[in-house]
Amino acid sequence: MPIYSATMDLPVALDAMGGDRAPDAMVEGAVRAYRAGVPVMLVGDEERLHMALRTYEVELPVVHAPDVIGMDERAVEVRRRKRASIAVAADEVASGRASALVSMGHSGATMAAALFRLGRLKGVERPAIVAHVPARTGFVTLLDVGANADCRPAMLQQFAVMGSVYARVVFGHADPAVGLMSIGEEASKGNELVRATHPLLASTPGIRFHGNVEGNDLFSGAVPVIVTDGFTGNVMLKLAEGEAKMLFASMRDELRASLRGRLGGWLARPALRAVADKVDPASYGAQPLLGVGAPAFIGHGSSGARAVHSALRFAHDTATRSLVRRMAAELEGQRSDDDGDD
Amino acid sequence: MPIYSATMDLPVALDAMGGDRAPDAMVEGAVRAYRAGVPVMLVGDEERLHMALRTYEVELPVVHAPDVIGMDERAVEVRRRKRASIAVAADEVASGRASALVSMGHSGATMAAALFRLGRLKGVERPAIVAHVPARTGFVTLLDVGANADCRPAMLQQFAVMGSVYARVVFGHADPAVGLMSIGEEASKGNELVRATHPLLASTPGIRFHGNVEGNDLFSGAVPVIVTDGFTGNVMLKLAEGEAKMLFASMRDELRASLRGRLGGWLARPALRAVADKVDPASYGAQPLLGVGAPAFIGHGSSGARAVHSALRFAHDTATRSLVRRMAAELEGQRSDDDGDD
Repeated sequence: MPIYSATMDLPVALDAMGGDRAPDAMVEGAVRAYRAGVPVMLVGDEERLHMALRTYEVELPVVHAPDVIGMDERAVEVRRRKRASIAVAADEVASGRASALVSMGHSGATMAAALFRLGRLKGVERPAIVAHVPARTGFVTLLDVGANADCRPAMLQQFAVMGSVYARVVFGHADPAVGLMSIGEEASKGNELVRATHPLLASTPGIRFHGNVEGNDLFSGAVPVIVTDGFTGNVMLKLAEGEAKMLFASMRDELRASLRGRLGGWLARPALRAVADKVDPASYGAQPLLGVGAPAFIGHGSSGARAVHSALRFAHDTATRSLVRRMAAELEGQRSDDDGDD
Repeated sequence: MPIYSATMDLPVALDAMGGDRAPDAMVEGAVRAYRAGVPVMLVGDEERLHMALRTYEVELPVVHAPDVIGMDERAVEVRRRKRASIAVAADEVASGRASALVSMGHSGATMAAALFRLGRLKGVERPAIVAHVPARTGFVTLLDVGANADCRPAMLQQFAVMGSVYARVVFGHADPAVGLMSIGEEASKGNELVRATHPLLASTPGIRFHGNVEGNDLFSGAVPVIVTDGFTGNVMLKLAEGEAKMLFASMRDELRASLRGRLGGWLARPALRAVADKVDPASYGAQPLLGVGAPAFIGHGSSGARAVHSALRFAHDTATRSLVRRMAAELEGQRSDDDGDD
């Protein structure tokens, strides 16, 4: 399967019908991104999209797709319904007319469309979803956060290679340490999966294996890439989002309870806001799906224009930095060290 | 194996030699608890303990134990070294001279001592460690948070029964909902373990099964008992602690960066402190080990006097409320519904 090349000029294909607030928030986000210099292509019902675009007096390329996979439908529908917006958007990328795929719609359908229409990179059994977790210093690359609820050690090994390339390309780490999420630092600690994965990662060329890390290490930033199975990663990610929300809500409640608190809260607001923004998932907009043949990004169903704008900018950056090409080369290296089973 | 009865008069047995700051912080915490009305027995090197007690001019019962299991030793050592402080403390409980066991020392050794010397409750394959997670409203009972890295569905079922009794006895919930940690609300979502456990919990008498919950639900408090395997639970707990630390440290950094922030931070401090205290694990001091024949509590190795005091008070409360007796009765009920396999 080909690795699609991306240039600065190719637009990012946005599934403009996916997400709770589609198409309006999708169009608004796309217009903002376009005005900030990101080339965008809208995929969906052309009549509705042209109508929505009229408000902004902006001309964006629109590719018609009369169908849409609803949030309550099964992901595999995407294989059959070739005119669904997510399928058409993926085809635009597969055919080389767009550089990257972005959808705030049905996550499973987006994953399936990316897998079946963009293909898997050689040496990858299953793609993984990445999250950027805001740490004390910079961001931590955490994967998988939900594509694979049950993993085998070889899958975690592939995640480690992909995460390592990702941190180099996206965050500019020269030689990022890769940690294995566990419940103790010693190699003997963890569940069966982790104990079997540890020696595999220790002997994987091309990555710098740090050893086991624990839940609290996610936020120190000392280990910039952390791999885990998609069940644990998804629980971690949602927990992290929920905790930040709970803490800020509790602080608001406490501050409002006294005059001193209200005054202090007003003065402290810019600083607290800066911290809240840092941990806001809308700041990067959507999560990359690694291991497929072109950059693909999956956002929250509830995404608004701000998240859409961020996701499109991020997708464009990633495409222009040849993330997928570099990942394919690294995985190819693994395979030749590895007798190239496939 | 007998279920030990506890009365208001029986002391809590504290492994006074366990923990990074033993015995000084142990003795200080014990003295504080004693002064607040909690009967305490110190177990460890009697000479050192009497010496440490002299500072406070308080007489506490001391039971001599000349040996101690170091943090870097193997947990199974506790089976052989019968004069180690944790073993002697567990024996004091097993023989009915103390109501509950508390140790800030080697977690594995504490678990092993509790299991081998206090026995397992009928119907329990493996004990589980409980954490109280501070939620928007009240606390959530989360288990297992680390005793069992790999679980089978029947174990999660036992955790659900124990967690339900725990929330009734400790938090006064009349009929607490029990959630199964997963990565989607639908019964079909999750890893193999969760998908196999879901129907089992749905058909377990005596608990109110809510269905699946997700990471963010840990902090809403809407589902007061959440069960998961010990790997996921341990990652969650450490992540939650790490995130709170990271957020408060980031806020401190941001507030210090401007005059407005420094003033706001000073005014807001009591409110922010109240939130920080709420999420501080020292507020309940130690984690209960459920499924053994008497109340047993395992604390952080780094615990200071405040955590020790909290743990002793909490252990005493739990013992006087007959937690273990009620749990044994509930598990017995499960077994008779269940044809009583053991």
